[in-house]
Amino acid sequence: MASRNDTRTAALRSPVQIPLRPLGHADDSEDLRTTRIPLVSPSPQVPGGFSAKAFAGEVVPFGVTAFREGHDVIGVHLRLTSPGGEESLHRLTPLRDGTDRWRADVALYERGAWTYRFEAFSDDFATWAHAAELKAAVDVDTPVMAALGAELLARAAAEKRRPAAQRRHLAAASQRMQDADAQLISAVATDAELATIFAGRPLSTLHSASTPLRIVVERELAGVGAWYEFFPRSEGAKRLKDGTVRSGTFRTAIKRLPGVAGMGFDVIYLPPIHPIGEINRKGRNNTLEALGGDPGSPYAIGSPDGGHDAIHRDLGTAADFRAFVRAAHKEGLEVALDLALQAAPDHPWVAEHPEWFTVLPDGTIAYAENPPKKYQDIYPINFDRDPAGIYAEVLRVVRHWVSQGVKIFRVDNPHTKPVQFWEWLIGIVCGEDPDVIFLSEAFTRPAMMQSLAKAGFQQSYSYFTWRNTKAELEEFLTSVSHDTADFMRPNLFVNTHDILTEYLQFGGRAAYRIRAAIAATAAPIWGVYAGYELVENVARPGSEENIDNEKYEYKYRDWDGAEERGDSLAPLLRRLNEIRRTHPALRQLRNFSLHWSDDDSILVYSKHLDAAFTGTGKPDTIIVVANVDPHSVRQTMVHLDTRVWGIPLGESFEVEDLLSGSVWTWSDHNYVRLDAFAEPVHILRVKERA
Amino acid sequence: MASRNDTRTAALRSPVQIPLRPLGHADDSEDLRTTRIPLVSPSPQVPGGFSAKAFAGEVVPFGVTAFREGHDVIGVHLRLTSPGGEESLHRLTPLRDGTDRWRADVALYERGAWTYRFEAFSDDFATWAHAAELKAAVDVDTPVMAALGAELLARAAAEKRRPAAQRRHLAAASQRMQDADAQLISAVATDAELATIFAGRPLSTLHSASTPLRIVVERELAGVGAWYEFFPRSEGAKRLKDGTVRSGTFRTAIKRLPGVAGMGFDVIYLPPIHPIGEINRKGRNNTLEALGGDPGSPYAIGSPDGGHDAIHRDLGTAADFRAFVRAAHKEGLEVALDLALQAAPDHPWVAEHPEWFTVLPDGTIAYAENPPKKYQDIYPINFDRDPAGIYAEVLRVVRHWVSQGVKIFRVDNPHTKPVQFWEWLIGIVCGEDPDVIFLSEAFTRPAMMQSLAKAGFQQSYSYFTWRNTKAELEEFLTSVSHDTADFMRPNLFVNTHDILTEYLQFGGRAAYRIRAAIAATAAPIWGVYAGYELVENVARPGSEENIDNEKYEYKYRDWDGAEERGDSLAPLLRRLNEIRRTHPALRQLRNFSLHWSDDDSILVYSKHLDAAFTGTGKPDTIIVVANVDPHSVRQTMVHLDTRVWGIPLGESFEVEDLLSGSVWTWSDHNYVRLDAFAEPVHILRVKERA
Repeated sequence: MASRNDTRTAALRSPVQIPLRPLGHADDSEDLRTTRIPLVSPSPQVPGGFSAKAFAGEVVPFGVTAFREGHDVIGVHLRLTSPGGEESLHRLTPLRDGTDRWRADVALYERGAWTYRFEAFSDDFATWAHAAELKAAVDVDTPVMAALGAELLARAAAEKRRPAAQRRHLAAASQRMQDADAQLISAVATDAELATIFAGRPLSTLHSASTPLRIVVERELAGVGAWYEFFPRSEGAKRLKDGTVRSGTFRTAIKRLPGVAGMGFDVIYLPPIHPIGEINRKGRNNTLEALGGDPGSPYAIGSPDGGHDAIHRDLGTAADFRAFVRAAHKEGLEVALDLALQAAPDHPWVAEHPEWFTVLPDGTIAYAENPPKKYQDIYPINFDRDPAGIYAEVLRVVRHWVSQGVKIFRVDNPHTKPVQFWEWLIGIVCGEDPDVIFLSEAFTRPAMMQSLAKAGFQQSYSYFTWRNTKAELEEFLTSVSHDTADFMRPNLFVNTHDILTEYLQFGGRAAYRIRAAIAATAAPIWGVYAGYELVENVARPGSEENIDNEKYEYKYRDWDGAEERGDSLAPLLRRLNEIRRTHPALRQLRNFSLHWSDDDSILVYSKHLDAAFTGTGKPDTIIVVANVDPHSVRQTMVHLDTRVWGIPLGESFEVEDLLSGSVWTWSDHNYVRLDAFAEPVHILRVKERA
Repeated sequence: MASRNDTRTAALRSPVQIPLRPLGHADDSEDLRTTRIPLVSPSPQVPGGFSAKAFAGEVVPFGVTAFREGHDVIGVHLRLTSPGGEESLHRLTPLRDGTDRWRADVALYERGAWTYRFEAFSDDFATWAHAAELKAAVDVDTPVMAALGAELLARAAAEKRRPAAQRRHLAAASQRMQDADAQLISAVATDAELATIFAGRPLSTLHSASTPLRIVVERELAGVGAWYEFFPRSEGAKRLKDGTVRSGTFRTAIKRLPGVAGMGFDVIYLPPIHPIGEINRKGRNNTLEALGGDPGSPYAIGSPDGGHDAIHRDLGTAADFRAFVRAAHKEGLEVALDLALQAAPDHPWVAEHPEWFTVLPDGTIAYAENPPKKYQDIYPINFDRDPAGIYAEVLRVVRHWVSQGVKIFRVDNPHTKPVQFWEWLIGIVCGEDPDVIFLSEAFTRPAMMQSLAKAGFQQSYSYFTWRNTKAELEEFLTSVSHDTADFMRPNLFVNTHDILTEYLQFGGRAAYRIRAAIAATAAPIWGVYAGYELVENVARPGSEENIDNEKYEYKYRDWDGAEERGDSLAPLLRRLNEIRRTHPALRQLRNFSLHWSDDDSILVYSKHLDAAFTGTGKPDTIIVVANVDPHSVRQTMVHLDTRVWGIPLGESFEVEDLLSGSVWTWSDHNYVRLDAFAEPVHILRVKERA
């Protein structure tokens, strides 16, 4: 499908020829880097030659800095070429804020690599109209302005690509201008029909074009989605009378899928499902020795039963796994697998390919370590000893799971493997199947996180879990929505099996409600790890993860009982995902705007989508007001820049709280009271104005 | 001359071969964009493919973001290739601030186009030493660490490019490590001599290199200099008894040169010296009609006497001009001419080349205008009607003045001509004579100002005159020193014949002292328009320029009398230029650091140059503390981050005020009192510490 907002016009003419060197001068330098009308800092653009990213349906703000010498009026077009080769032209709007920045928002639908460039031109009729209006008002230069106007209109009338009716109209206008007086000049300079004609196809000269750039459109789920993580071995696990445990299986885990789908999630993510090493297996709470029956960490991948392409025998067979994938699809869920490139000491790779690991002088293989600490249940892979071998093996493993119906990979610690490897792997896998999505779990410094995203990861875990105060969230949400959105898509997981922040540990139920509401509305991808709805907030002392962590043992949870007792947050999660589904503004990343309150814990932001992009013909505007202090009742004034949504300052409008159903009349300054224990967050829909 | 700081090492090995595609896979995509060790955001770098700029002797901060997966130690080199083809390697230092940024400061001397790239490598010995030290401390893995150490040292000993003595030392160390105990391992891991050996030539693998970039080094005066502007027709002008005026000439103006040179200026800049149009000549104070004897604005260029290549008959002959240039050179001054590309109605171009102007339908030529206002003494050039013709003519004019000994052009309003034209012109002129310097007078929005600088202008007038408060100056000086220094060099003129700001109009003598002290010390290029030293601060009412503006009349000034009476600021200007001459830190742009005070009008900054770059073997540190409120006495605490100059926080040091001679003992927190009427500014030299 071609992009919307298509204001197609004639192909621009070729640029004016400038003599690069006068005759007789030896040309020993390069061509000019400046176009006749300068076009600089085009965006989206990713440094380092990487393509910018978008997802199908994403509204992309295209921008460029364009200006010219003197005062003549210029215009700027965006020329987009779809993956299928279809071209469209879009007129940019000047921001008029002194930056010479121009912008056009375009929704991209067709998947694949688009190219785009900006084209600037001298807008000759607009230049005349501007001067003509000012001069006519004081009757200056009237005969000259009339003659100039007639000349321009005649030139436009002669343009063969204009429709015949338009050409006749222009020719007639030119005739009328021959001996026009100031009044007629003024009328023509401000004529609405001429303005429309020239908006569609300007009368232009000095055509200048920027260098083409690329933006790759991936499928919608690459940029929009609600994720849910569970350990399949816990779903249906049972303590037997003899004290032993019967593991959950894919067959029993299937029974949980309707519950997850019913909460409105899109992706069900499973930690590694492979055989777990026996050697040096970890016990409960990360103890060094497993007791009998301890299932071990699924991240200690590999045993004599197999490695990364095998399935843990407790979970079932390959057929059971495929049945799980099918059942998920039936519920509208896609399955995400964990890709954790490391090996337990008994992984088959260790014996078969010791060259994929670091072999020490004493012939042993080096454990993972943070000197002098060691992690003896895991051997890290050494990607440099036999790159061809290990690269090919990982590709084989990924292709295997793709063949089993898995299109999403949550990649464990990608920042401990070469970035170059990921660029290579993702390039090949997504080249073969553009539906495949890789989520980067790189909790590390910004340079590495961002490089992984540029190298190809469709999504990235983010610093969201550690951004809890108003000031932190303001900085974080603005940054991910605007500074890095051309290449990095944050997945706002509220918790993971590795992360239970102090905010959740000590903020009670309110903290869980606040974080879910923000994660679900501030960005188009969010995620929840099972147990969040039960407010599982007890940490292993001194750590930032759950006590009795599911990584090392089974969990038995009574989802339905909790919900019946009213203890579960499942209804909230369900409602949040429902709101996301009905409000397209929440399914965009770059449309985040910060607003203000007088309280240092009341966070205010909005997400807005113009009517052109909602599919309903009406704009969609959501305002979120959150008390991020889970221990208090706060009241304050909230200040909104309503102009962001096209509402003039001072005008009033109705808002409806999508959580409570309350309706209020708001304007740019409003009073709010948010009780962390009762109603910590407003998610307000701006109701259609009369 | 090659760059300093040369830590030449062996050429790095070629990068490890990575299989771009496994066998059997169709290679249909591009090569990887990520190097084995990622190297991103290299600087200096100018977007749009323009070269970065430096001046001869400039200390350039080279930087890159480099990091790798996992925890192994990396190193980063800068490989510089001089215009003469000489290569040098410079080791970068990690900033260790979480940004993964690395930096090396290098002074570039040789003029011409340098290329540079960054090279990262795995620092294998440093990785071992880090782990070995930690493990030896707790006696873990001792035999393995000994064997690994022996292996690495043997590998280093085998590197043929190392000096023989070094190889013997490494081999011996390897021998000793064969069965080392924890104590010996620790000793080797922290051995100073080995550290020196490996600092000079690391034991490295995983070599990665960034794409080469270019930086062009221009002559020192392109980046460092004190400018003085005068109208030669005023220097020696005399009112005769009959009421008429005898114009100053080049011969009489020569007499002023020793005075200008004596104040320590480097460049004498002259407004246009060409014949001035008679038609529609402007009178005094920009009135529309000139009275008999009014000399007219030198910017209304051209008369039957000639155009841009001619000399106004009142100023003398071509021989007189050449004599003026020679006299200036003798005084150590270079002459800068004005290049104002516009024509009076009686300029010879108008009759000979009407195609270089905009011809209206009634056959007349369009005046300069800002509709509905017109400027009837000037025709602007239309660069699009006959680009080949007008480009060639301007080039001919510039070449003519270069042939007359002029190497500097102050370009009037370059932002009203195509940026592309300037890129073309400067490219050719500086290609023919790299000594030529163009100063851009583009008082307009940032996008245009910056594009002109990128396109080739060596210097730019800046917003300095309108940045007067502490907050404004902090933002402005930081921005020009750091954000745009790779391509734009600000010339901090304190006033011009067009600009007399409110600050100077109403700030009295103190304002003039404050602004001169800041302009002369905050950036390496500053400028003064004649009359500043006499505190000529009366504006034409309602305007931002001097009353009885010299553009439209002669000025008669008694330089020596004013100085004798103690009314002149010449002694201050002389002292400021003397301080600039003796303190190399003041002749750099990028070494500006902001410090703090508790008063909202006390501005604090420093300029520092490491001992490696001063030529004296000692560091040069200047601290400027300025009361920017010209109407008050202020006292406050000043807070200094002394670490910027290598002085630990809390340590005390002596400072000497280079204006008053006072000496104080300072540390990181100091009391100051600045009386705008007596001593508004401290310019402090940090004295050598014992």
